Amino acid sequence: MAEIMKVHGSVISTATQRVLACLNEKELEFEFIPVNMAVGEHKKDSFLAINPFGQVPAFEQGDLKLFESRAITQYIAHGYAEKGTTLIIPGRPMATLSVWMEVEAHQFDPPMFGIPTDNAAVEENEAKLTKVLDVYEARLAQSKYLGGDIFTLADLHHLPNISCAMKTQVKKLFDSRPHVSAWVADITSRPAWSKVVAMGK
Amino acid sequence: MAEIMKVHGSVISTATQRVLACLNEKELEFEFIPVNMAVGEHKKDSFLAINPFGQVPAFEQGDLKLFESRAITQYIAHGYAEKGTTLIIPGRPMATLSVWMEVEAHQFDPPMFGIPTDNAAVEENEAKLTKVLDVYEARLAQSKYLGGDIFTLADLHHLPNISCAMKTQVKKLFDSRPHVSAWVADITSRPAWSKVVAMGK
Ligand SMILES: N[C@@H](CCC(=O)N[C@@H](CS)C(=O)NCC(=O)O)C(=O)O
Ligand SMILES: N[C@@H](CCC(=O)N[C@@H](CS)C(=O)NCC(=O)O)C(=O)O
Repeated sequence: MAEIMKVHGSVISTATQRVLACLNEKELEFEFIPVNMAVGEHKKDSFLAINPFGQVPAFEQGDLKLFESRAITQYIAHGYAEKGTTLIIPGRPMATLSVWMEVEAHQFDPPMFGIPTDNAAVEENEAKLTKVLDVYEARLAQSKYLGGDIFTLADLHHLPNISCAMKTQVKKLFDSRPHVSAWVADITSRPAWSKVVAMGK
Repeated sequence: MAEIMKVHGSVISTATQRVLACLNEKELEFEFIPVNMAVGEHKKDSFLAINPFGQVPAFEQGDLKLFESRAITQYIAHGYAEKGTTLIIPGRPMATLSVWMEVEAHQFDPPMFGIPTDNAAVEENEAKLTKVLDVYEARLAQSKYLGGDIFTLADLHHLPNISCAMKTQVKKLFDSRPHVSAWVADITSRPAWSKVVAMGK
């Protein structure tokens, strides 16, 4: 597994940022290959050969070609378990971590993800996010991080969308919940994440 | 881990069916606890104590409480690796299996999931599904199953939505693609899945 890891993506893409945050936490070397989405490079054959869905990020290591940001982070976290930040918890606690990774993907990401075009959609998304954050507040009152006592992929996967949210009117939904806002402050101030933010500037 | 596994859910819920299919493949004993969604049992405190999002399925085993169907199937597949059908592939091939589990969750499920209320939404979903199934056709031309040479969670996770799709007008999108339709015929005829279908009758 000594082949160089290559990440194809865009520094302003949230899904790409998820993978970069993971690589930084793991203190791994990698090559970043910018994909110029403005000119449709992600829909060209050379890119579709790595990700047939034509989305960033895509990942290569020797003959291993991966896509889908959360599959890439899991590969890195499991494949380099002893490097840098742990990010996963082996054995039975992994099941709880999986639950919260699924929550991010199915409950948190959808209302955060869309850029709603009308006011009704904005309000519907805010209402959904309010309910989701109520569950997070209760969870984070019991447990320092979503997956358990330590920072894991379950938290890391949230970083790109949370950072976007903090620049919009939904910031208030995070700020008004004490455990959620302490968690946001904690995870967004990690050096591995600051490096991703700096790349986008 | 000898405690009895309990699945709270509804036999007509696709997410519940995903977990039942997995338990059947693993030939594991479990207790099924029906949740009467028609009277809102999934929004009562006793249920919210297991899944704060108030959705089925939820899973208990001793003091372990899980929700999110794909987290539950992964717990079962990893925790009972030596029982019944393998469903996962350890080591590096697991990364490819993860990619296709993410594809199911992010590319396949969304257009299948909603019950669109107007014709424009129906057409948009069909257009999305068409593109997704083109990628599946290419993948299944190279590989017997999505995750590799053997039937795994990546295939299993599709079963509930595919079975629904086969009763609607989108069936034609599956039938017109030879590798996709052979794969659908193969995976939907597995005895573990037939048992789930029989429970819903
Ligand atoms: N579920 C995918 C989502 C990837 C995704 O949506 N990427 C966006 C940028 S953040 C993209 O490439 N969009 C262009 C397109 O869909 O055509 C993942 O997590 O990797
Ligand atoms: N991502 C969840 C989805 C669960 C889900 O949507 N369950 C539906 C039935 S298939 C439900 O409980 N709906 C009721 C509700 O959302 O209030 C999973 O995979 O478990």
